[in-house]
Amino acid sequence: MEKRTDHIVKSYDDELDQIDHIIAEMGVLAARQLEDAIQALVKEDTALAQKVVLGDAAIDALENEVDALAVRVLALRQPMALDLRRVVAAMKIGGSLERIGDYARNIANRSQVVTALPGEYGGIRVIERMGGIVGEMIHGVLEAYRDANVERAEAIRLRDEAVDQLNNSLFRELLTYMMETPSNITLSMHLLFIAKNLERIGDHVTNVAEHVHVMVTGESLESERPKSDHSSQIISEKP
Amino acid sequence: MEKRTDHIVKSYDDELDQIDHIIAEMGVLAARQLEDAIQALVKEDTALAQKVVLGDAAIDALENEVDALAVRVLALRQPMALDLRRVVAAMKIGGSLERIGDYARNIANRSQVVTALPGEYGGIRVIERMGGIVGEMIHGVLEAYRDANVERAEAIRLRDEAVDQLNNSLFRELLTYMMETPSNITLSMHLLFIAKNLERIGDHVTNVAEHVHVMVTGESLESERPKSDHSSQIISEKP
Repeated sequence: MEKRTDHIVKSYDDELDQIDHIIAEMGVLAARQLEDAIQALVKEDTALAQKVVLGDAAIDALENEVDALAVRVLALRQPMALDLRRVVAAMKIGGSLERIGDYARNIANRSQVVTALPGEYGGIRVIERMGGIVGEMIHGVLEAYRDANVERAEAIRLRDEAVDQLNNSLFRELLTYMMETPSNITLSMHLLFIAKNLERIGDHVTNVAEHVHVMVTGESLESERPKSDHSSQIISEKP
Repeated sequence: MEKRTDHIVKSYDDELDQIDHIIAEMGVLAARQLEDAIQALVKEDTALAQKVVLGDAAIDALENEVDALAVRVLALRQPMALDLRRVVAAMKIGGSLERIGDYARNIANRSQVVTALPGEYGGIRVIERMGGIVGEMIHGVLEAYRDANVERAEAIRLRDEAVDQLNNSLFRELLTYMMETPSNITLSMHLLFIAKNLERIGDHVTNVAEHVHVMVTGESLESERPKSDHSSQIISEKP
């Protein structure tokens, strides 16, 4: 990966392109952090988990860079219409990608605890599946941003439903499992929080999709985004 | 509360003031939603919880309003220096307040489940205390934004430590409690997620404090914010 400190600014178009490049880089980094965090969990790889924890600072630094560059462009270039909305969207999307990085770091932290604990649980496969979908959503929404493609953004936004549903069923299953084997409660708890983190990453991706919509159309979405996360209302199957 | 659809725009200063007013309104609303959600939990008041769930849409609408107004000011007024940073900060802070509203709604949803479940747990007092601190932090950081007061923003940012520590000790306590009384696992789980939501609200308040810092000084904070949330690494006291 090239160092970002050597960004050289030449023209207005270059500056806008540079903002896009940093967002793309943040997206690639966030998706990789997530993927590594999930692999650290699945393969019980604490070194990889540590790498994710340390790697989060790079995403934070890129967010500051996007913001600084955006303010600079707004001040010196006074962009209009689509260009203006592109700069605003970049700041918003940068914020979402930074949060996604935070969640990946949190998953990596928890994966180390899960690895250290005795016991095993098949639900990790569900988490792996959720992670895979969410990772694809991150890549997809960044392509939608790059191509200013509203339809693609909308398609990504609708995929979040699948993530919510996996989270709901895992939540239910893990609660039951905890009651049956209280000795595995700590393990189950961390898996529940990991699944919740993935569900929140999905929410942030749908937010990014909404920013793409606003950027392209100039209109905010009227409808509430579809929400199928009912885990906050779940009572276990064996109360 | 006055309706916000009748915002009448007169001058550049009016427009900037209007952005500030909407942010202040969002802040008051978010703090009240949080307070009501905690009260719904403590007093087992499902009607109040329902009110919070329905009330979240108002915060979302205000965020869209801030963004639309900010883009308008950027396009038509081309603000410079502090004014420009103020508009950018408003968009960022609006995003954080919207997330805080989401967490309050999630707490309200969970409070209804907790109310419906048998059993009782003293830890609710700790949650009430965390909610009180976080509520004060929201009010405080919005005063810091209003007064462009960096010292106050920094003081608020440091209070997040207390929230993290309460969350850590509650997490530890609840894990132990779950193992001792598996019949109360569902209740305990929801309380853990509520505490986690409060910890995340605290994180968003520190983000807002950082945006105030950037707005006033034009510089982003060099240092990582102090983080004492170690709950992702906690193993129960009785493993």
